[in-house]
Amino acid sequence: MQIIKYPSRKNWDTLCRRPAMQHSSVETTVRKILDDIKLDGDKAIRHHTQLIDGSTPARWQVSAAEIEEAEKSISADLKKAIDVASENIRKFHAAQKQLSSIIEPMPGVKCWQKAIPIEKIGLYIPGGTAPLFSTVLMLAIPASIAGCGEVVMCTPPARNGTVHPAILYAAQRCGIKNIYKIGGAMAIGAMAYGTETVSRVYKIFGPGNQYVTAAKMLVNREGIAIDMPAGPSEVVVIADNTANPHFICWDLLSQAEHGPDSQVLLLSTKEEIIQKVLDVLPAHLDKLERKEFAKKSLEHSACILFENDAEMMDFCNTYAPEHLIIETEDFTTLGNKVINAGSVFLGHFSPESAGDYASGTNHTLPTSGYARVYSGVNLDSFMKKITFQWLSEDGFQRLAPTIEIMASQENLQAHKTAVSIRIEHLKKQ
Amino acid sequence: MQIIKYPSRKNWDTLCRRPAMQHSSVETTVRKILDDIKLDGDKAIRHHTQLIDGSTPARWQVSAAEIEEAEKSISADLKKAIDVASENIRKFHAAQKQLSSIIEPMPGVKCWQKAIPIEKIGLYIPGGTAPLFSTVLMLAIPASIAGCGEVVMCTPPARNGTVHPAILYAAQRCGIKNIYKIGGAMAIGAMAYGTETVSRVYKIFGPGNQYVTAAKMLVNREGIAIDMPAGPSEVVVIADNTANPHFICWDLLSQAEHGPDSQVLLLSTKEEIIQKVLDVLPAHLDKLERKEFAKKSLEHSACILFENDAEMMDFCNTYAPEHLIIETEDFTTLGNKVINAGSVFLGHFSPESAGDYASGTNHTLPTSGYARVYSGVNLDSFMKKITFQWLSEDGFQRLAPTIEIMASQENLQAHKTAVSIRIEHLKKQ
Repeated sequence: MQIIKYPSRKNWDTLCRRPAMQHSSVETTVRKILDDIKLDGDKAIRHHTQLIDGSTPARWQVSAAEIEEAEKSISADLKKAIDVASENIRKFHAAQKQLSSIIEPMPGVKCWQKAIPIEKIGLYIPGGTAPLFSTVLMLAIPASIAGCGEVVMCTPPARNGTVHPAILYAAQRCGIKNIYKIGGAMAIGAMAYGTETVSRVYKIFGPGNQYVTAAKMLVNREGIAIDMPAGPSEVVVIADNTANPHFICWDLLSQAEHGPDSQVLLLSTKEEIIQKVLDVLPAHLDKLERKEFAKKSLEHSACILFENDAEMMDFCNTYAPEHLIIETEDFTTLGNKVINAGSVFLGHFSPESAGDYASGTNHTLPTSGYARVYSGVNLDSFMKKITFQWLSEDGFQRLAPTIEIMASQENLQAHKTAVSIRIEHLKKQ
Repeated sequence: MQIIKYPSRKNWDTLCRRPAMQHSSVETTVRKILDDIKLDGDKAIRHHTQLIDGSTPARWQVSAAEIEEAEKSISADLKKAIDVASENIRKFHAAQKQLSSIIEPMPGVKCWQKAIPIEKIGLYIPGGTAPLFSTVLMLAIPASIAGCGEVVMCTPPARNGTVHPAILYAAQRCGIKNIYKIGGAMAIGAMAYGTETVSRVYKIFGPGNQYVTAAKMLVNREGIAIDMPAGPSEVVVIADNTANPHFICWDLLSQAEHGPDSQVLLLSTKEEIIQKVLDVLPAHLDKLERKEFAKKSLEHSACILFENDAEMMDFCNTYAPEHLIIETEDFTTLGNKVINAGSVFLGHFSPESAGDYASGTNHTLPTSGYARVYSGVNLDSFMKKITFQWLSEDGFQRLAPTIEIMASQENLQAHKTAVSIRIEHLKKQ
């Protein structure tokens, strides 16, 4: 990990650049898969899964017996952990419910917003080396609080045709009935277009590899909503000399272990803490099972030294990290200066892992600088708001001249006449 | 306008189809413009504007003198109308501010959401035949309530290089400082990439023709957020025999006058009201200045008769209209059954024009069935929510085993160690 000292502002753009991803060939492959699914449904899913994975389960839908089996096979400790995390996630997301009241901007003109759940949603849960059952909780719990009627889940099976039991346990705990053993771009196509087996949904959530991401972006262009554009995971740690360099090392590594394209940055105004972290990092890195991933990730990561807090926070807001851990004495002052970030972890005992799993906040967060403009997944992600209005005859008459003048100035005659004809009618009464 | 009686559910998909739009050639043209702007900034804007419009203003930025002039040139009545509408829009959107509180899912684990304005936004305001100064209000007022720091506005000038004074008056009333006379895809490119003259923004709002829409979709793929995917405008009117057929006619026409690709539907369980509307429609249509637009629009519009309210509301939710006007005696019962719509107008004196201009609700709404999943523009559209968390040593220790078990089951060793190393440290104290 390189050290960059006092970078000038004209280099910030370069420092904020994320590791490049290659898209074009992936997009062509995925486009073909999606087009085939649109035409041939289940048959195309079977064909492409066979090509890519070498096999496809005889039956995609997970049976009640499999779920029962899964529940039996996982330890009481893990069940308890899932229960604790679920309860925290439930509490935090349930508190996001908003009561909306009727506003009367002028007498007789009543307007209100009503939040209504999205009827049909789809969740994609990756399998493979990291069976992300925590993601099931992060997506299915707010969906259930929102009241989404139909929740479809797809996840790739292992070679032997099974799904990790923790994924199935988490899903059934969240009340998901329709779970399909379909992975990759095929899963996204199935949920976007619908097939004989899988119902079509209106919005698709969940992380995935570059094929899944490309498929989500492509179906998004065709009108299927997605949770957010996804890039490699990233963390910024801000530290001062009160921070523990070992804590920082593992916070950086817990992002770097995600994959070779993850990026981690350590920002500080104190050279001392940066040096301490770099001193202890190699030994910790060496203990890591996913060492090869982390090493590659650290190659395009950096420790950056700043003149002062203002400069450092400006840079951090320009970078707009997915995760931001502030391990300083005065984390409140710095925390108040955060404008762009996905999720912020304050103090020495709030590691990113807490939010990744169990504190209650969501772990589906904007990467690649999208935090400048997008929120992470939250209760709103599963609902949309409809505005309603009702005007009394009096209220209507009060507002009518305003509408008539504006409509006529915009040269929209029918917009004006829809008002005038009602005014004439009222005059005749 | 055709009448369709008791359509069977298998035909609903066809009935819900919007008039097709042609994209591909527009996309190629727009892609070239955007690529040129990315490379050559202002020079490319000048070049393409000259090609398309035959001229380009010597100076793009609207001067203080021009704004002063605009304010003088518009009537007191129009100013008053803009003031009334602005105040209603302000009240309705200000009421959408939410206070978020700190949640403590378990003792010592504190989590909260903080809504923060998007720093830099861009507004596109079409000029031409309909100078949409109302759209300035609909976008700039919530942006100002949200607290967006930098608001850039682009709008195409008339042949003589001027902007409609009502647009300038509305903009200055909303506190917009940076207004540029740039139109079409060039405006979108300028705001998305930034040029020597126009600053880059993070999110672009506003309606436009197919070139503007294509440009918004293309820059969206590159990471610039947009308000929502836009299609032609549409309205569904639901009526019973208590409705006034003349009111309905003008409500339908006020949507049909938008353009030849607008779609209007009249739904009812009473054939009588449908017949009455069709009887009086031709005479009203004949009075319309934008008759040719409206006629084309009515060709792919329909009156649909249903067996009962349940069936009708089911269809309406499947169609998911941008605007829904319910002109029936019992509009409350039907209104409560709305699941998918952009904005709903209840009763006989709540025409769509009220919400288009002045009641306070926003008129930037999801078209083409996007109401199934997207909200219209509202205060949230100008903000994003960041989650924060702080764990006390106690809280951390309470949550630690849960995190450790989950991380180790997901094979994410560093995620686990970031917790374990802190626990070890606390034990040593």
